[in-house]
Amino acid sequence: MNPQHPFQAVNPLSKSDRIDDLWSPRVIAEMNDYQFKVVRIEGDFVWHSHADTDEAFYVLNGQLRIDFRDGAVELEPGDLYVVPKGVEHKPFAAQEVRLMLIEPKGVKNTGDQDGKLTAENDRWI
Amino acid sequence: MNPQHPFQAVNPLSKSDRIDDLWSPRVIAEMNDYQFKVVRIEGDFVWHSHADTDEAFYVLNGQLRIDFRDGAVELEPGDLYVVPKGVEHKPFAAQEVRLMLIEPKGVKNTGDQDGKLTAENDRWI
Repeated sequence: MNPQHPFQAVNPLSKSDRIDDLWSPRVIAEMNDYQFKVVRIEGDFVWHSHADTDEAFYVLNGQLRIDFRDGAVELEPGDLYVVPKGVEHKPFAAQEVRLMLIEPKGVKNTGDQDGKLTAENDRWI
Repeated sequence: MNPQHPFQAVNPLSKSDRIDDLWSPRVIAEMNDYQFKVVRIEGDFVWHSHADTDEAFYVLNGQLRIDFRDGAVELEPGDLYVVPKGVEHKPFAAQEVRLMLIEPKGVKNTGDQDGKLTAENDRWI
């Protein structure tokens, strides 16, 4: 059962206050086989892609840039962007950014690239 | 192909400024077979449920109450709530609320209840 029901809304930005490490997404809600996650990021992530799924970014706080091999997109608080599946991308934040991610359960944060930034999955907050 | 790519973020709240009717969700982005929609609501919606899917509500602006047969949840701007599939619910807004909805493509806004508030699907803005 959805742990949100009954009768408790969640505030993604407030939830992110409880995260004390960067690049470590935490699950705050589920919708069918999708998860809503919050994450704090700063600096450069790794280039990666997700072969099987799109990935939605929603900026809660700060300014996010997502680099692509052929361009970039800049996001302000309240902006949404969906990275298409299979497209290489690299999030970048000059200063700390709080994000909400929406994606299927089980998606690895570093996609096809394992490394020190690969985070454990399915950690709730 | 996702119409967002390449390189254009969308701002759900700004998109909602372009909607001139209530209870009429407009699609702003797609993620796999899911859609992000924005909608302006005010007053009482109809009791309904979605037999096959959860439905995510994210409040952009205003104060939303979602009534259930056995309680209610109150949402402030920036709050998220996922209504579980099969659960009867009725959104209510004493004053206008702007919402972002996330749900599978093709979900009817009034679920199992057809009526005058049933909106056309898959309208982009």
